[in-house]
Amino acid sequence: MSVVVKVSGKLFDEETVDSLNALREGIRGLIEEGKRVAVVTGGGATARRYIGKGRAMGANESMLDLLGVWASRLNAYLLSFSMADVSYLKVPESLEEFIHAWTSGKVVVVGGFQPGQSTAAVAALVAEASNSELLILATNVDGVYERDPRLFKDAKLIPRLTTKELSDILETSQSVNAGGYELLDPIAIKIVNRSKIKVVVMNYNKLSKLREVLKGKDISTIIEPA
Amino acid sequence: MSVVVKVSGKLFDEETVDSLNALREGIRGLIEEGKRVAVVTGGGATARRYIGKGRAMGANESMLDLLGVWASRLNAYLLSFSMADVSYLKVPESLEEFIHAWTSGKVVVVGGFQPGQSTAAVAALVAEASNSELLILATNVDGVYERDPRLFKDAKLIPRLTTKELSDILETSQSVNAGGYELLDPIAIKIVNRSKIKVVVMNYNKLSKLREVLKGKDISTIIEPA
Amino acid sequence: MSVVVKVSGKLFDEETVDSLNALREGIRGLIEEGKRVAVVTGGGATARRYIGKGRAMGANESMLDLLGVWASRLNAYLLSFSMADVSYLKVPESLEEFIHAWTSGKVVVVGGFQPGQSTAAVAALVAEASNSELLILATNVDGVYERDPRLFKDAKLIPRLTTKELSDILETSQSVNAGGYELLDPIAIKIVNRSKIKVVVMNYNKLSKLREVLKGKDISTIIEPA
Amino acid sequence: MSVVVKVSGKLFDEETVDSLNALREGIRGLIEEGKRVAVVTGGGATARRYIGKGRAMGANESMLDLLGVWASRLNAYLLSFSMADVSYLKVPESLEEFIHAWTSGKVVVVGGFQPGQSTAAVAALVAEASNSELLILATNVDGVYERDPRLFKDAKLIPRLTTKELSDILETSQSVNAGGYELLDPIAIKIVNRSKIKVVVMNYNKLSKLREVLKGKDISTIIEPA
Amino acid sequence: MSVVVKVSGKLFDEETVDSLNALREGIRGLIEEGKRVAVVTGGGATARRYIGKGRAMGANESMLDLLGVWASRLNAYLLSFSMADVSYLKVPESLEEFIHAWTSGKVVVVGGFQPGQSTAAVAALVAEASNSELLILATNVDGVYERDPRLFKDAKLIPRLTTKELSDILETSQSVNAGGYELLDPIAIKIVNRSKIKVVVMNYNKLSKLREVLKGKDISTIIEPA
Amino acid sequence: MSVVVKVSGKLFDEETVDSLNALREGIRGLIEEGKRVAVVTGGGATARRYIGKGRAMGANESMLDLLGVWASRLNAYLLSFSMADVSYLKVPESLEEFIHAWTSGKVVVVGGFQPGQSTAAVAALVAEASNSELLILATNVDGVYERDPRLFKDAKLIPRLTTKELSDILETSQSVNAGGYELLDPIAIKIVNRSKIKVVVMNYNKLSKLREVLKGKDISTIIEPA
Ligand SMILES: Nc1ncnc2c1ncn2[C@@H]1O[C@H](COP(=O)(O)OP(=O)(O)OP(=O)(O)O)[C@@H](O)[C@H]1O
Ligand SMILES: Nc1ncnc2c1ncn2[C@@H]1O[C@H](COP(=O)(O)OP(=O)(O)OP(=O)(O)O)[C@@H](O)[C@H]1O
Ligand SMILES: Nc1ncnc2c1ncn2[C@@H]1O[C@H](COP(=O)(O)OP(=O)(O)OP(=O)(O)O)[C@@H](O)[C@H]1O
Ligand SMILES: Nc1ncnc2c1ncn2[C@@H]1O[C@H](COP(=O)(O)OP(=O)(O)OP(=O)(O)O)[C@@H](O)[C@H]1O
Ligand SMILES: Nc1ncnc2c1ncn2[C@@H]1O[C@H](COP(=O)(O)OP(=O)(O)OP(=O)(O)O)[C@@H](O)[C@H]1O
Ligand SMILES: [Co+2]
Ligand SMILES: [Co+2]
Ligand SMILES: [Co+2]
Ligand SMILES: [Co+2]
Ligand SMILES: [Co+2]
Ligand SMILES: [Co+2]
Ligand SMILES: [Mg+2]
Ligand SMILES: [Mg+2]
Repeated sequence: MSVVVKVSGKLFDEETVDSLNALREGIRGLIEEGKRVAVVTGGGATARRYIGKGRAMGANESMLDLLGVWASRLNAYLLSFSMADVSYLKVPESLEEFIHAWTSGKVVVVGGFQPGQSTAAVAALVAEASNSELLILATNVDGVYERDPRLFKDAKLIPRLTTKELSDILETSQSVNAGGYELLDPIAIKIVNRSKIKVVVMNYNKLSKLREVLKGKDISTIIEPA
Repeated sequence: MSVVVKVSGKLFDEETVDSLNALREGIRGLIEEGKRVAVVTGGGATARRYIGKGRAMGANESMLDLLGVWASRLNAYLLSFSMADVSYLKVPESLEEFIHAWTSGKVVVVGGFQPGQSTAAVAALVAEASNSELLILATNVDGVYERDPRLFKDAKLIPRLTTKELSDILETSQSVNAGGYELLDPIAIKIVNRSKIKVVVMNYNKLSKLREVLKGKDISTIIEPA
Repeated sequence: MSVVVKVSGKLFDEETVDSLNALREGIRGLIEEGKRVAVVTGGGATARRYIGKGRAMGANESMLDLLGVWASRLNAYLLSFSMADVSYLKVPESLEEFIHAWTSGKVVVVGGFQPGQSTAAVAALVAEASNSELLILATNVDGVYERDPRLFKDAKLIPRLTTKELSDILETSQSVNAGGYELLDPIAIKIVNRSKIKVVVMNYNKLSKLREVLKGKDISTIIEPA
Repeated sequence: MSVVVKVSGKLFDEETVDSLNALREGIRGLIEEGKRVAVVTGGGATARRYIGKGRAMGANESMLDLLGVWASRLNAYLLSFSMADVSYLKVPESLEEFIHAWTSGKVVVVGGFQPGQSTAAVAALVAEASNSELLILATNVDGVYERDPRLFKDAKLIPRLTTKELSDILETSQSVNAGGYELLDPIAIKIVNRSKIKVVVMNYNKLSKLREVLKGKDISTIIEPA
Repeated sequence: MSVVVKVSGKLFDEETVDSLNALREGIRGLIEEGKRVAVVTGGGATARRYIGKGRAMGANESMLDLLGVWASRLNAYLLSFSMADVSYLKVPESLEEFIHAWTSGKVVVVGGFQPGQSTAAVAALVAEASNSELLILATNVDGVYERDPRLFKDAKLIPRLTTKELSDILETSQSVNAGGYELLDPIAIKIVNRSKIKVVVMNYNKLSKLREVLKGKDISTIIEPA
Repeated sequence: MSVVVKVSGKLFDEETVDSLNALREGIRGLIEEGKRVAVVTGGGATARRYIGKGRAMGANESMLDLLGVWASRLNAYLLSFSMADVSYLKVPESLEEFIHAWTSGKVVVVGGFQPGQSTAAVAALVAEASNSELLILATNVDGVYERDPRLFKDAKLIPRLTTKELSDILETSQSVNAGGYELLDPIAIKIVNRSKIKVVVMNYNKLSKLREVLKGKDISTIIEPA
């Protein structure tokens, strides 16, 4: 069995590497259980900084997206190089390259693939191509809330919902801010549905206790394809 | 100025090469006008045949999509090799590769890029990355209709509409058949909107008269970003 | 020990995937016996269709051959994706790429390599480079006949012959039709001879019983290098 | 004639894109004069941040250097994408790739090539391979000083010196800080000497007036190979 | 119009670079006439030395051929780097890579492509793919002789013959020595015939007077496809 | 644990393959001990011959170095193909490619990486990137001497010294001949120091007794980082 972990780019913006180390521990734990692991990294603040500069200099939207993609790949290299004994050590730049890399038996770490596509969509594609039954979205909140928890402090976490229900929530909660669809975009949802992939949303601070979270011993949100 | 022509895979399913030759004439006409041209080819019946066999053999959804992608690339090679004096002669396999290929000054022909993505989305990305102001969708009907013209013989063609209006029509007209969103999918519409690309839908049988169609001398549908 | 199976492109033209599934069973059987397997796929009707269109559009002979090569690679991807747990999942495009891919320990599936070269020659090269002692040619007839069995219903199968004898037969039997040398062309024969590779010609409908055929329990032709 | 501009990574750390825009103007000015231009970008603060995190996570020195290399490539993409009409749009990852890219006639932008090598060494190699007679080092000080000007406010600028004299100064002035040899390292000096390349050190804030600086109308340091 | 020059590997074995310089002059002459030029280089003594060592060390036949291919590529790089202002500066490793390289407008230099294939076959493929009407074989004799001129001092040169006649001569004259078919092997002849390419065999010492030779002002052999 | 063996290009210049076979035996011995092995090959006489011709033809210094790099890669292919059962069979062309190749678990053989860099520097980089604790320099003398042993027959071998001491010796002993720094250049020394890699210099004729040499049972020089 294999698992895909999609980590928010925000993990790479933190001052310390504690959460990154927790991520590695979580990955090693999964490997010890006999699971194969693929990781998808977001672009975070580095992506936003380069996109901002590119926009100020007049680059077109495709190329702005590519700057974000390259920033996410830089995050991917950081993680990959930091577990050199188990990782593939080359960040695949497309799903076709991922598919081939996956046959190596190694942990494969990727960033973005192409413009017009979120790293959440990349994660769904990677999960589908690798026949994974589980996609973990590790982010800076504890799961899916009824409303965007950064904006509404009292928003309530939803422990279990369907992709259909998630779409409805995200359309409302995310429509307020420009970036839109941060957790799962429509393509990611389409992929997750067509290949019946279970999704777990959790806080990346708990990645060292990943197994406990997956056993339901800690807070998270489980999304069932539907 | 540059133009992107997206041709339906159905063009490659026809018995004769007459429409393909018309496409080449249309492209040469644009070049003579001093325009640069990129072409995106659909997968057509070849794609459907290989996807059908792959499904019967148990390949996963990502790999089925990749079979469709490779079929569309075969169509792209056919077209590219048939105008060897002006074309790049290598079919780029990702937007990054397209962007580099585009700097060659040649006609660049691509098929699909990756799973989970229609060739219409590829065409929108290619138009955006190449700073094209015009995206031509050449297909087996004369333009956008109020309802799917294959199912409703009396459907009326709409000469001009916005992407917003198109989304509404496609949601209704295409919801009936499984394939869905054939002309422009949500990602394509998002790209076309964010980069203000004008879209013209026309019949590929009229490609040799492409300039006339673009001047409004023949039937087609013009879609304005909005 | 390793084995190379060259399958006629005609296998991919059939209505059902039964023979393709038999091929997979045959391959899995060989793997279970501890053998490594490489597969070379012909281009079949898809190749002929695209070459026909390319010719009608004026592509040169090299590019027509390349269309055939890409069609055979599409067949290779279909097979490769359909046994994703054991295959390399990337179709190598040259012998050098094959040689590297072979070090992965996976089943490597290739189509054609380059213009001016049959997939039988590719199969001989692949067998030589992988130090295989056996090359299986799986096709739509039961073995080598005294005359082309498609043209002469009463042609008699030859159970055992040398490459020298084969050359003589093919020169006569195949000289009638334009395509020429379908089973083994002169280059393939040269390679098979210089590296002393045993060749077995058999019907692809019997691929699920491959082991029986190899043990001589079913009809086939054995060609000894000489 | 061709010119290589090596820009300090510090240019990419600034709040605004003013200096980056000045760089582009400078490049366009050179192109208008009929010169070809290659650009090498340093890694700056992004490189230092990722190297710091990688070190905290236990990556080895080669991989830390590679993180710096990837950061400098991100800077290269930002610049390249911001002048899409004249640039190669792919950042070459080795000198061999640069040499090929250079034949395109475009502006080629590179970051680092490999571990154990400064971007100044890359710039010298790029200048040599492209038969450039001039290598411009654009940085955050006005030229070469008798002592490190960041540490000694009263250090005096040297308008003209030989590579031999530069080696002596850098050994003293740079030995104080760990990073060492920032302007030109021993390999860069060896290359610049063996191929007789003239080097000009100048402030990147003056890049829009590059032509004036090169004509000696503004402050800078000229280093003659010797 | 374009021309392919295939130079014997022996040219690279000579003590001096005089003949190599003559080759460059010949190429520049063709360019000045407005012709495009591709060059194919043989492997010569370097190839034989490495093949000999590889055989003594037990490498298989495919890999021995590859050593010869790499040696011919080394020759190709020498020539390519020595005319850096007009050449592509990357030696393509397959016909597909050549086809793409050819669109650059540069002189493209290649060595061998793959095992089981002579560089004469490579030259024929390159001529066909580039729609060249002329293939020049530059070697250490003055043309095609009735018998091998190295063995029979009084052998007579044949100024003009067909590929059919050449095949007959080569079969007799070359059967004596092991190497066989040195000038044009069966595949090269097949390609040259199917695409109606004219072949001229000449001495590489006369390459600086290439235009005179082509005008019939100096000795050579002209082979007409048939 | 892993070991890097850097073999002098002179090993490939010898008449017989005896020393090359000894190298293979040495490598197989290390593998049997459970060690992983990477090999770096020098360019030797082939490199010098091609560089000489390139210089006579006016190629620039970068391209002359590249000819040496390609010659060393030819040596690398010879060795790699001669132990096809354990080697990666593709010669990586950069450290990034090596790093990825190393994850395969195979013996990886490389030649040079880029201009301006000795194969000794390549070896140090490869040792660092692969976390090797030992770098063996196998050459045509028995170790490091007080003076260049080719010039001074009575020079005395130094059994153990630090990199600091080596730098001092090499500066004197090698300053006499133009090539300079043959054993370890400044970059190699910098890498070896920063990553604390132990270096052993030994005669390549003793490679079949490599284990004995490493145990101190035969003559060699041990260099400790410092
Ligand atoms: N209903 C909701 N429940 C949970 N989170 C929500 C909701 N609506 C919006 N969000 C926001 O989604 C964010 C999670 O997205 P995340 O940071 O993982 O995306 P990303 O694209 O990987 O990050 P980056 O762009 O920084 O690389 C949270 O920070 C949260 O504020
Ligand atoms: N409202 C509508 N107006 C026009 N066409 C519509 C509408 N609704 C559905 N369609 C269908 O969309 C089709 C055009 O899609 P097209 O064939 O270009 O897609 P494609 O994906 O490129 O093709 P392929 O999958 O064969 O490669 C038409 O054949 C038409 O039947
Ligand atoms: N003497 C003979 N014995 C057997 N088969 C013969 C003989 N002469 C001609 N053939 C023909 O050779 C064919 C086998 O070639 P095969 O179809 O395997 O080639 P292929 O190139 O792989 O196919 P494709 O081009 O369709 O991909 C048979 O269909 C048979 O008709
Ligand atoms: N004698 C000197 N004269 C001038 N500058 C010196 C001298 N000694 C040290 N320096 C330092 O060298 C620096 C220039 O190096 P520069 O920033 O261009 O290197 P870089 O490697 O490209 O940058 P980065 O690592 O940020 O990408 C100046 O900031 C200056 O402080
Ligand atoms: N003090 C010294 N001790 C040992 N060897 C020395 C010393 N000074 C110079 N040398 C020379 O260094 C040489 C070893 O370098 P080596 O041949 O390994 O370099 P290489 O670059 O790999 O070879 P090539 O360029 O032929 O590929 C010896 O032949 C020796 O003559
Ligand atoms: Co790989
Ligand atoms: Co290209
Ligand atoms: Co691989
Ligand atoms: Co290019
Ligand atoms: Co190119
Ligand atoms: Co690999
Ligand atoms: Mg985001
Ligand atoms: Mg066939």
